[in-house]
Amino acid sequence: MPRLRLSDAEYLRRRATILQRLGERDITAVVVFGPNNVSYFSRFGFIPTERPIAFVLTRDTSALLVPRLELEHAQEFALTDRIVSYPEYPDLRHPMEFLKDILVDLRLSRAKIGVDSDGYGQLYGYRGPKVSELLPEAEIVNVADDIEYMQMINSEEELELLRESARWANLAHAYLQEYCRVGATETEISMRASYEASQAMIRTLGPEYRPLGRGLASAGFRGQIGKDSALPHAMTSNARLKPGDILVTGATAYIWGYSCELERTMIMGEPSPEQERFFNLMLEVQTLAIQTIKPGIPCSAVDKAVRDFFKENGLEQYWRHHTGHAKSTLVHEAPFLDVGDQQTIEVGMVFTVEPGIYVPELGGFRHSDTVAVTPDGVEMITYYPRDLASLVIPV
Amino acid sequence: MPRLRLSDAEYLRRRATILQRLGERDITAVVVFGPNNVSYFSRFGFIPTERPIAFVLTRDTSALLVPRLELEHAQEFALTDRIVSYPEYPDLRHPMEFLKDILVDLRLSRAKIGVDSDGYGQLYGYRGPKVSELLPEAEIVNVADDIEYMQMINSEEELELLRESARWANLAHAYLQEYCRVGATETEISMRASYEASQAMIRTLGPEYRPLGRGLASAGFRGQIGKDSALPHAMTSNARLKPGDILVTGATAYIWGYSCELERTMIMGEPSPEQERFFNLMLEVQTLAIQTIKPGIPCSAVDKAVRDFFKENGLEQYWRHHTGHAKSTLVHEAPFLDVGDQQTIEVGMVFTVEPGIYVPELGGFRHSDTVAVTPDGVEMITYYPRDLASLVIPV
Repeated sequence: MPRLRLSDAEYLRRRATILQRLGERDITAVVVFGPNNVSYFSRFGFIPTERPIAFVLTRDTSALLVPRLELEHAQEFALTDRIVSYPEYPDLRHPMEFLKDILVDLRLSRAKIGVDSDGYGQLYGYRGPKVSELLPEAEIVNVADDIEYMQMINSEEELELLRESARWANLAHAYLQEYCRVGATETEISMRASYEASQAMIRTLGPEYRPLGRGLASAGFRGQIGKDSALPHAMTSNARLKPGDILVTGATAYIWGYSCELERTMIMGEPSPEQERFFNLMLEVQTLAIQTIKPGIPCSAVDKAVRDFFKENGLEQYWRHHTGHAKSTLVHEAPFLDVGDQQTIEVGMVFTVEPGIYVPELGGFRHSDTVAVTPDGVEMITYYPRDLASLVIPV
Repeated sequence: MPRLRLSDAEYLRRRATILQRLGERDITAVVVFGPNNVSYFSRFGFIPTERPIAFVLTRDTSALLVPRLELEHAQEFALTDRIVSYPEYPDLRHPMEFLKDILVDLRLSRAKIGVDSDGYGQLYGYRGPKVSELLPEAEIVNVADDIEYMQMINSEEELELLRESARWANLAHAYLQEYCRVGATETEISMRASYEASQAMIRTLGPEYRPLGRGLASAGFRGQIGKDSALPHAMTSNARLKPGDILVTGATAYIWGYSCELERTMIMGEPSPEQERFFNLMLEVQTLAIQTIKPGIPCSAVDKAVRDFFKENGLEQYWRHHTGHAKSTLVHEAPFLDVGDQQTIEVGMVFTVEPGIYVPELGGFRHSDTVAVTPDGVEMITYYPRDLASLVIPV
């Protein structure tokens, strides 16, 4: 049976780790508001809205604050000692007053409390007080960096979820490639591939499967078709595929909120010499980046090697972005494979590796693979073929 | 030709309005970071990442700060006097230093500057200085409420985009209803309906159509099937439809970033007397809410009428959330049809109207319609049938 969720032990380990880490600075409680952070510690996945949700953690207990409409949902899915619900936001009594009640009840009015942010953000029209205003005698410390650091290091269970994600991203991408033909539109190819892969996935994985993400399996182009592939973050224009088009793709699948990133450059028909040249340079620099990653060096060193390659090969005018970013439950995460990121690479970090070459009027060349750092280098989480011959669409 | 985008005049009007509004408080420049706010004033739609994007507006000029990878994209789509690009985040020089250059160049070092937040948020691992730290001699004023107030009032052009969205949400929902049958799974129905509606939409609207949103047209259930329909924010479990199931749906379509909200309660087969009773109570209270909305009364009055209905009909234990929220380019927006929201309703505001009755072990009953406030009451933006007979699926 494939792993489709994290064990409860994993959540309890996370809680012990953050409490110990912060305990060294005499911080005795943690309050998180970021939806991703709430899920990370509480096991509760939900749709963020204007209604704040917060998770409170101390050495002795835990409490989840939810709006009334999430109460039964939280009771079914959250791993917490206590759930407190407030009626609504804004309602007659502000949700943060209910959070204050919890904190006062836990005798934290004068405690040193770690938070991921000093209150809930301005999401969807929300407004409200800071924790430091609720508890003026407490000492509120921003510990977002500590939580983020923990999230950078993936456990074996987390890696298993990412590997599972990669299987289905691979299937979605295989369908995408198969459905590419001259005259087909971007969205019909991508929606059909996403549909087929998702239907196969949910039948294979059975009723235990919960995506907890943005959809199930998917693959598409996000507008990066033909000349528009030279725009790294183009948006859908629903182009029809033509002979000679360069296609830059993207595929993923959600497993318990975890998702890999798989992107490929494909070519409609026999590549021109120019297309072949840039494709192979891209493949070479991606391989260089993958081979450079290892524990103990700074993230910047990987991007430095890539930027040197661009310089040595006269590609600087085609450079658009850094080499990659961490990847687990968000779209992008820190640390970044970027000359400005001095974070040391550690075993268990997961990165996308995606140096891109963007040639105006010709197109873009970018693969993205998700790799996990091992003691010796990396494990390839995504495994779709990277070579040109495998990525040429017969026309 | 249907309206598929806002005119440039609309963007220029918005800029004049915010500058005049803030000018009354001697605020001479505006800097926005929220992706929705950047798009609102600059016409530039993009995928938010760890790389900050900011729009600067003064009486004399405008400037857009983008990362290198968005430069050509911004040049093609943004309505701005000037575009400044920085290489990357984090890179060797922080993006906010480039913003500081723009502000200094515009002689704003000691100005009174309105911002939607004092710096870019902690999105995807971003960290950086506040505007107030960049320009310690400037006076930084949070004007998020002013911008939000402007966004509450929809122009005729914005209403046209919402009406266009409603046509395609209607089609997606019609396919969804048509594809419901015993034994089919949630995701195959919803993905097929979304596919068919999207393909019809893009062919009907032609190459000028740009969704600028989360997908094209879509319809689904988000897990609200059978007993799980009693969870207002359930998440996909890929249930198979059974006779007697209550289905709570949702459909929308994106037009230039604008999207309506259309939700319906449907029943698989002849409704039980209990199902019929709760359905009709829900329909009655939704109708009451729609009829209550008019300019000049506070938002709270609508929710008060709904909550009174719950009390008078002994439904209080089945109440889960407020009556509705504003709706244009975000999933939820202020103001809220909520007893705690004292905002006065004005012509041009657009609300979802969606009081729900959630009966544990039986299911949930909720329609959501999008309505625009007119001088006399409301215009129904969404128009799918609301009566029980139209929403029973033959089994």
